[in-house]
Amino acid sequence: MKQKGNLVSFRPDVKVVDVTIRDGGLVNDFRFSDEFIKALYESNIKAGVDYMEFGYKASTELFNEDEYGKWKFCKEDDIRKIVGDNDTGMKIAVMADVGRTDYKKDIIDKADSAIDIIRVATYLNTIPAAVEMAEYCKAKGYETSINIMAISNAKESDIDDALDVISRSSVDMIYVVDSYGALVPEQIRGIAEKYIEMADATSKTVGIHAHNNMQLAFANTIEALRIGVSMLDASIYGMGRGAGNCCMELLLRFLKNPKYNVLPTLDFIEKYILSLIENGDVWGYDIQYLLTGSLNQHPRTAISFTKDKRKDYKKFFLDLLDKD
Amino acid sequence: MKQKGNLVSFRPDVKVVDVTIRDGGLVNDFRFSDEFIKALYESNIKAGVDYMEFGYKASTELFNEDEYGKWKFCKEDDIRKIVGDNDTGMKIAVMADVGRTDYKKDIIDKADSAIDIIRVATYLNTIPAAVEMAEYCKAKGYETSINIMAISNAKESDIDDALDVISRSSVDMIYVVDSYGALVPEQIRGIAEKYIEMADATSKTVGIHAHNNMQLAFANTIEALRIGVSMLDASIYGMGRGAGNCCMELLLRFLKNPKYNVLPTLDFIEKYILSLIENGDVWGYDIQYLLTGSLNQHPRTAISFTKDKRKDYKKFFLDLLDKD
Repeated sequence: MKQKGNLVSFRPDVKVVDVTIRDGGLVNDFRFSDEFIKALYESNIKAGVDYMEFGYKASTELFNEDEYGKWKFCKEDDIRKIVGDNDTGMKIAVMADVGRTDYKKDIIDKADSAIDIIRVATYLNTIPAAVEMAEYCKAKGYETSINIMAISNAKESDIDDALDVISRSSVDMIYVVDSYGALVPEQIRGIAEKYIEMADATSKTVGIHAHNNMQLAFANTIEALRIGVSMLDASIYGMGRGAGNCCMELLLRFLKNPKYNVLPTLDFIEKYILSLIENGDVWGYDIQYLLTGSLNQHPRTAISFTKDKRKDYKKFFLDLLDKD
Repeated sequence: MKQKGNLVSFRPDVKVVDVTIRDGGLVNDFRFSDEFIKALYESNIKAGVDYMEFGYKASTELFNEDEYGKWKFCKEDDIRKIVGDNDTGMKIAVMADVGRTDYKKDIIDKADSAIDIIRVATYLNTIPAAVEMAEYCKAKGYETSINIMAISNAKESDIDDALDVISRSSVDMIYVVDSYGALVPEQIRGIAEKYIEMADATSKTVGIHAHNNMQLAFANTIEALRIGVSMLDASIYGMGRGAGNCCMELLLRFLKNPKYNVLPTLDFIEKYILSLIENGDVWGYDIQYLLTGSLNQHPRTAISFTKDKRKDYKKFFLDLLDKD
């Protein structure tokens, strides 16, 4: 596939999506202070971030609101408290999981909402439900995205079938999601090329959401960018489940569009992220995540290993091999 | 440039070089216990590592032996104490810096040495001296490599001139060295292609030594591998100056040759590396290294920032910009 842009130019189609609250919320059960969220919102605007994801639109029937911070549910009033009418150039995103969102109840008309885009998270086997949800949101007036998770475990033919279904929908964006942090740039390229081919033919755009299990989240993101992916997910200091995400600060330093500025992000890290770490929130690359990633396994065993403060990597690896 | 090999096959020309003592020695002034070095040697053999670098062959006239551990000097007797006659498939390497090595005094006949390869480290402006040193070592019976440091600051025409001089020498290997961790895979590819073209025409091989300032050491290493680079430097847990190197454990999990085995490396990390970290040795990716790397600057300011336990990233970045 032909390269789009080069290392000096920039492509105006490229958009940066901050997923700190949403993916980072998986680290601390979404228990961020309002001060943190407000400061992140202001920092992202100054940094030139294009979209900021506030969290999940999770079902209050399925999840107990006492067990999570409010950003698992992203109620309209809670977002409004931070952004008002969001009279800025930055768009507001939320994620809606297939099967875990009461979308017909909780997703109101766009005209009445501060939210701009609903990102539907799905596995390959629930694509029809994802398309149904995305069409519902589109009809309500939102931008929509379908984010196909755990793609590293998928058969090529299943990906082709999913792309075919999505191509016939009104969805605006489709995301390559390397949930397990199992893919290397060469593999990301192969998958993204399929997505781009479909998207180019149907006036959709393609995004990438990478995990850092093998220290490849940033590398995979810029490889996807190089061949034409436009929507780039990143989080401040890489905050996200397990090994975390592509670091916002790496991405902002790399992108050549002068609208992007890393200084507000550095300031935010000093003032808000370091204290999370001091208080015991743990994420980021470590051996256990490399091992699950390189075995193309869900990171849950590595997350337990981390929580238990284990360091017996060799035994852990042997146990993972037993499960294969 | 055509890809060599794919993600399932393996190329028998690929060799893994452990640089833990040499680059890691820059973290702790080469103060490793003999027990550590012996265990690393045995672990590397079990892991299938092809070359193990023991340190520098530094001049005892220029450097005070009291101020460093013995692996800055790599005396024959010290290596022999660990490896005996090294009756194994793993080769022993040392690094010799141009201008900092009394090579005519300290490099003895290969027939009397446990060392197999001398890696000459040079900047572009000392290539003639590097070639002279490499020719001397070659005549003594060693394999030789010329490792051109700080290549991210070089003009293309200067690289071309250096490759021309080296092409007419007897040196066996030439290395792409991203000393500042400033290069992204696309740039590594551009430089490595030049090296490979010269090397293919003169029966030499090409190596890569990456730094992790932008979380790209592993990505840059496998990108170089993909297009035909054969010699891959890595260190255990990435131990090396500043942001450190490509992690051995990532590389061993990635390579498809069944001779490589990550288990001994995991065992070594548990038993020997974690205690270094607990005792205060610091290396690895952090914001300050991203900032120097992305500005294509030497990491010395970031290393000072780390030693001073500073966290004021924003001020640090503004100071770096002032120096540009």
